[in-house]
Order: sequence, then C-alpha cells, then structure tokens
Amino acid sequence: MAMYLRSTMARALGKRSFATAARGAFATLEAADVAHLRSVCPSALTDPDEIAPFNSDWLNKYHGHSQLVLRPKSTQEVSDILKYCNEKKLAVVPQGGNTGLVGGSVPVHDEIILSLGNMNQVEAFDETSGIIVCQAGCILENLDAYAGKYGYMMPLDLGAKGTCQIGGNAATNAGGLRLLRYGSLHGSILGIEAVLADGTIVDCLSTMRKDNTGYDLKQLFIGSEGTLGVITKLSVLTPPRSTAVNVALLGCETFEDVKKAFVQAKKNLGEILSAVEFMDRASLDMVMSQQPSLADPLSSNCPFYVLLETSGSNETHDMEKLEGYLEQVMEAGTVVDGTVAQDAAQAKKLFGIREDITLSLSSRGHVYKYDLSIPIDEYYTIVEDTRSALASHDAKVVAFGHLGDCNIHLNISTLAYDDAVQKALEPFLFEWTAKRRGSVSAEHGIGTHKPHFLHLSKSPEAIRMMQQMKCVFDPNGILNPYKVLP
Amino acid sequence: MAMYLRSTMARALGKRSFATAARGAFATLEAADVAHLRSVCPSALTDPDEIAPFNSDWLNKYHGHSQLVLRPKSTQEVSDILKYCNEKKLAVVPQGGNTGLVGGSVPVHDEIILSLGNMNQVEAFDETSGIIVCQAGCILENLDAYAGKYGYMMPLDLGAKGTCQIGGNAATNAGGLRLLRYGSLHGSILGIEAVLADGTIVDCLSTMRKDNTGYDLKQLFIGSEGTLGVITKLSVLTPPRSTAVNVALLGCETFEDVKKAFVQAKKNLGEILSAVEFMDRASLDMVMSQQPSLADPLSSNCPFYVLLETSGSNETHDMEKLEGYLEQVMEAGTVVDGTVAQDAAQAKKLFGIREDITLSLSSRGHVYKYDLSIPIDEYYTIVEDTRSALASHDAKVVAFGHLGDCNIHLNISTLAYDDAVQKALEPFLFEWTAKRRGSVSAEHGIGTHKPHFLHLSKSPEAIRMMQQMKCVFDPNGILNPYKVLP
Repeated sequence: MAMYLRSTMARALGKRSFATAARGAFATLEAADVAHLRSVCPSALTDPDEIAPFNSDWLNKYHGHSQLVLRPKSTQEVSDILKYCNEKKLAVVPQGGNTGLVGGSVPVHDEIILSLGNMNQVEAFDETSGIIVCQAGCILENLDAYAGKYGYMMPLDLGAKGTCQIGGNAATNAGGLRLLRYGSLHGSILGIEAVLADGTIVDCLSTMRKDNTGYDLKQLFIGSEGTLGVITKLSVLTPPRSTAVNVALLGCETFEDVKKAFVQAKKNLGEILSAVEFMDRASLDMVMSQQPSLADPLSSNCPFYVLLETSGSNETHDMEKLEGYLEQVMEAGTVVDGTVAQDAAQAKKLFGIREDITLSLSSRGHVYKYDLSIPIDEYYTIVEDTRSALASHDAKVVAFGHLGDCNIHLNISTLAYDDAVQKALEPFLFEWTAKRRGSVSAEHGIGTHKPHFLHLSKSPEAIRMMQQMKCVFDPNGILNPYKVLP
Repeated sequence: MAMYLRSTMARALGKRSFATAARGAFATLEAADVAHLRSVCPSALTDPDEIAPFNSDWLNKYHGHSQLVLRPKSTQEVSDILKYCNEKKLAVVPQGGNTGLVGGSVPVHDEIILSLGNMNQVEAFDETSGIIVCQAGCILENLDAYAGKYGYMMPLDLGAKGTCQIGGNAATNAGGLRLLRYGSLHGSILGIEAVLADGTIVDCLSTMRKDNTGYDLKQLFIGSEGTLGVITKLSVLTPPRSTAVNVALLGCETFEDVKKAFVQAKKNLGEILSAVEFMDRASLDMVMSQQPSLADPLSSNCPFYVLLETSGSNETHDMEKLEGYLEQVMEAGTVVDGTVAQDAAQAKKLFGIREDITLSLSSRGHVYKYDLSIPIDEYYTIVEDTRSALASHDAKVVAFGHLGDCNIHLNISTLAYDDAVQKALEPFLFEWTAKRRGSVSAEHGIGTHKPHFLHLSKSPEAIRMMQQMKCVFDPNGILNPYKVLP
C-alpha cells in the first residue's frame, strides 16, 4: 500500500514545480570535508544512487542535490559533525523518517543530510511510571510495540507510524489521531537531548513529569523543524494501553448537528472518547468512486459523517456509555443514521474509509491539499466558500479531518493541475483562515512550502522573536536553511 | 483558615533571614517617573500602607521595598508601563495572586510592582470546544466556576485557587492535583498574549488546539516566572466536568506495595484516575498531633497511605471499577486497610487530612520545606536517608506529595529554627536529588530561593541557553531581576 501510495501520489503531485529559494552563502562540500566527516561518522554515503532516496520526499514533490548523507550512531557523532560544519559554514538538513508533507526534511540545494535512522535504541523504560527514554531515530510503531509489552502505548498515532521517527515527530510537533485524548507532544515529551548548531550538547533529558527549574528549553525544539538544534534523545510519558476499543460511524443532516453530536459525545463519553473524526459526503463519494466494490457504510446518504472512537479499560462499561450516547443523539435527531463496529475487523474497515480518502484523491488526478485549523463555528463554512470560489472550475472540494481538534484537511481535486484553480485557492484560503484567527498549518508544519504564508498565522512581533532565537542559537544559519522562517 | 494559616506560618518561617542579592544598576524611582507612569496607568498606589501587602509574600518570608504599585487594566497600559521602565532602566516585578512559595512575585529591592489583579475579564468562552479566553489577572477559582456553568472545568487545581491568578499559574507552570489526569499547562494553554520588556506586545493568543506555524513562542512564557515577558491574556482548553467523583484512602505496609497499588490503579482505573496522592505515617501523625479531635481514618496503623481519586461520567461504572480494584489489591495484600468515602463530605474529610499536613507542620514550630521530583524507585529512599542524616537532631521528617507525578514534598519539622539542621539538609538534599536526575523544584519554581541550586537540575549548557534568551528578550534585565537565573 505504501509503495502504491508513493508512486500514485508522485504522479499526481510531481507535475507542479515550486519556486526555490536562492542558495545561501554556505561553503561547498570538498573532498577534505568528506574525509574529515567520515572520520567522525564512519556511516556516510556518497554514492549518488544511494543518496537519491534521501534527496527527495516520499511524494516526490521536493528535490535536493545533496552529495553526502551522514548516519551517526551517537550523540557525540552528531556533535562532532555539527561542530565541524558550523566552523566550515556547511549547511545541514536533519532527516528523520522523511515522511513530512511540507519539504522540511529534504535539502533545498546541496545541504549535507544528517539522517538519524541509525540512532534507534530504546535506552530505558520505567514500568511504574510508563516513561520511555530512547534515541531520536526510533520508529514510532516500534516504540508503540515496545511500550505495548508493558501495557502502555505511545501517546501519538499517525498514518506514517511505520516509517516516521520519534525525533522527527518531536521536531515537527506531530499531531494525529490521539491528540484529542492524550494532548500534544508539548505535554507528553518530558525531556529532550539536543545538539546545537555549534555542536553543543544540551542535556534536558529529564524523566520527571514535574520539573520547574528555569525555562523549559525542550519546548524550543518541539515544532521548530530542526532549525534550532538536532534532537538526539527523548523521554516520553506513555499512557496505559486501553483494553476496550469501540468505533461508530454516524450520519448527520447539517453541520450544526455535527457540532451537537460532538458536544454530546464529550458529555456522555467524556473520559473514554479517543477520536472524533469528520468527513463530508464528498469525501465518502471520492473513496467510493475509486473503490467501486465499497458499499455505502450507512443505509442513508448523509451530507456529514462523524467517526467516533472510544478507548477504555472496561468493555461492558464502554459499550453501555456508547449505547446511551447513541440513543440520546438519535432520539434528538442530531444523528439520523449510524453503525457501530461489532469487532476489530469492522472497526478497521470504518477507519479505513477515513484513511483511504487521501489515496483516493491522489488516484483521481491532481490534488491541492490544505491543512488548516478553523474555529469550530466556521469549520465547514470554509468548504462552502471554497466551492463558491471554484464554481466556474471543474473541481471537487472534499473535506475531512480531526473535528475534535478543529483541524480540517481541505482537498481540492481536479483531473489535472490547473494554474487558474491554484490562483483561485492561494492566497484566498490562507487569508480566509487568517481572518478567523485559524492556523494555516495545523499539524503539517511550515517546511519549504509555507514560510511566505507564516505572517498569516503569526504577528510581525512573533516572527521577529523567532528570527532572534534563530540568530542566537544558530548564528551561521547552517541548520535546515530555507525552512520555516521567511 | 487562610488568615490563620498566614499568621501561623509567618511565625514559623519568618525567623530565618535570607541572603539578599545586591541591587542591580537600575535607575531609582523619581517623582517625574511616578507622574508619567500614573498618566499611562491611573490605578497606581504610592501610600506605604497600601503598598505593604504587595511588598511581601503570604508567608511573610520575602520582603521588598517597592514604592510604587501599578495596577493596569489593559494590555496597552502594561505595554506603556514597560516601554517607559525599559527606557529609564527601572526594574519591574510582575505580581499575580502573590501565592508563590519561592519569592518569585515579591520585589527584592525597590522594583516597581506590576500587579495584574485589575485585568480580570473573561473575554470569550466557546461552548463547543471548551476553550476560554481571559485576561491574566482572573482568579483560578472564578474561572473554574465560569467554566462550570457550561459543564467544563479548569484543567488545574491547587490549594491557592481562591487567590492565585491564571497569569501567575502560567508564569510559574503551576502543577497541582489534576496534572496526573489533565497534563501540564504546556499542553492546556493554547495561546498567550505577552508584553516584552521593551513594551512590544506579542500576540500568540491562538485558540486552536493545533497550530504548527513556526516556533511555539507561548511555551517560553510558561514557567519563566515573569523574567522574559508579562503574560496579559491566555486561552485555555478546559476539559468536561466530571459528574462522578470517588475518593479512597488506602494503607500499605511497604513502599514497594505503594508502587504496586499505583501501577494497579493505572490498569484498573485507567481513564477515570484523577489523583494519586501519597503520605507517610509521620504525615498523619503530624496532623493528628495538631488536631487532637481527629480520629485515625483507618482501623490499623499503616506506615504508608495512598489517597486515590476517580472522576468520570458514570457513577455506577466508576464505583464498579473502584470496587474491582480494591478487591484485587486487598486480595493480593498490596493494600492492607482502606476506606472509601460514602459521600462528598467524607471525601472532603479524607482530602482534608492530606491538605492539613502543611498547616500542622507550621503550627508545630519551624519547618524546612523541599519540593522535589524523584524517580519513583527512590521516591521514599530520600526520606529514609534524610532521617539517617538527621539522626542526632531532634527533627521529624514528614513526606507526602503527588505520587502519580513523582513529586514529593519533603518537610523537616523542628520546634525552633536550627542552623545545624539547615546545614545538614542543604546542599545534601539538592545534591542527592541531582545524583538521581530528579528535580530540585518540581512545581514551586526557582524564584529568589533557588537560583544558586539551578545547576543541580540544569546543565551548564542549558543555563547558558537560558541566559542567552534573557539577554535577547530583556537586554536591560528590568523584568523580575534577581530571580530564576544564577
């Protein structure tokens, strides 16, 4: 599936070219540099064929021209590499699982690639507190399996879990499905060890849940996309694994009813609610158009769908709560149709529809993708306004997302890339979002894609503060240049 | 009770004098300054009697000599004040509810006091998402009552809730009882508006749960104790209010059993577990010695106690879970005695014992207070080691705390202040904690009390990063000088 997804999406997205920032005044890699760097980090790649996969993203949308990939195994190697690069003014792009969507982990020009994949050791797990300490290159799914052996789970889950690395998750402040229940990484990550641009190792690898000793420096590295330092180790608080999981798909007539169903779910399901996903009929139609064998999951055709998940410690209690909730929302007419998965296979199938929307969109042709946070009252208004704005174009507007977090994935599908559609969408959508104080990047980050839209979600004073921080901690600007900051 | 507490604790603590940092090279307040500041902020106090309560903390332990208290009503007033003070190099101490324990909100010399109490307006509440937007001077308990009208609650709760302000809670990264369930303020606070030392208003007042647009600047202000900026507004995610609350007090024979009872509680009570508090027999004895009418809450005398709280949405389910848990731990011998509160009054009484420990200690005489995070395996070892270290002194060592967060409040009680005891405790306890990578300040912060112990919980590189940040955002050092940084 992943490979199919990769090639299909590459076909759909690869056609459009992006304006590239001019190369900064960095040094150019020379043979002596390679020799020195290989002496401090023996695992180095210089063969163009071997480097190729590191030079582009999984959607084949962003392309760099690096000639050196370094794969350190220890924090000390990372430190030695950066110290040298900083002295020589060689630019560096840190790379985790390279599963991002905004080009944050791909070189723009000839930056040296610092790949963290060899730093994949779990260093400690405390069975009483559920706190795991590991290197940054550990794959999320592996960590989840590791914690699972002790009855715990990772506090985040996303589609790329089989490839993405925990260090990259932290650097991009990855969100995903479990955020509604377990909160953001700013809360779950208890400690970070990172290396600054000049090679300084900053040890803030606390494993304490409470530590009010000065500024919480680890927060700087969470979400800064590798521009302030390279995360080398982390400690993460893992919640107990739920033994009972239920999934229900509900149909609503209006978006007002979707909101009511959400609020009621918080009341009835409170502590067991673990996901509240949204999709509109256009999303379901898109999946069904690409998977002709898929039957409509509900007997009636509804304009709006809510996919609910509960996770708890007692199957009977959870089912009772869910049944009570369904009775209430169906009696009130808030929900007009629905189905509850009877087993894990059915649950997977219902979630599968939600997860297949992305693939179906890409299979159809070109897709313009937006990842926005919108205040809940106008969450669906942006979809309607986009449809109006594109009335004269042959375009399908499809919306789904993490309703519980006000995060909408707004996708516009055309059979082929059309510059007129692109112009109708940008900056319209970003400005629309900015007017409502939403976010122009809810969970995907800024990367190479959106530095010139940053001002729509951040004030000039905030951007100046970011620039000041960048100047202090990476004065030569060698860490992940051309990304995040305008 | 609060007034009694104040005078009793003042008697106990006020005897010891603290070394005071030398006054910095700030300007001295002149009549022209007062006139100008009054013109931008009419609510100003200059009468020494009126200023007195702002010049010391509630425990009467820290004392300043400010001659001016400014009580702005708007962010613009805060900005105008700081702009002027920065230009004139007048030092400023921001002050919320002034309920801290480390002198963070009290002037050390003659700093101007910026009291946020007049900024007490709720600006918005979203009933669907549960997100509240308010000014920094709102009192925590008032916000909790406000959210309660809509079925929500504040994600933090602490003893000082009737006086402390949400801006101060954020500035000190307050922890408290609900952290176990709802996480730290780094996760619950969605947005912050703050004013930098030069008067720049930084608007990061997002109300979006997901916003990955550049560095998460609001995190800088959370826990920096007013040294990087003055928080003026916040948006906070409030969780649904639980309708069912149960409290149980359990007795254990060994600390190993305490740990087992905690792990089992996470398994059986998972999503409804809302507090896991610990106290030793010495804590209970201390309360009973000061309240002769209080009967032993359990029939047997146990060396260790665990106070559990569950909060959920279904009374029957929660009680079933709790009973199942109790059956299991009692059958296994992990818990040897216990009681479950039959109503809210009994629950309050059980929690009352835990809350009265502080007061009882102060009533008895002098108390040396330590707020530490310790890895769970050695959580109680520090108590035993302290008893050994003090074997030749007439001192009672009493330990209680938020077990679920590895946070221990270690208290040493003597009839009167004794310099030999003080010398036996410091730096012994801080170094002991540092060796185990614990935290020398779990939730109380650094303030004036612990800047010279910061190096025991933070590496030299981390402290240098903090100093660099301070230099960038407050180059004249006017914001809360002598605090946090060494």
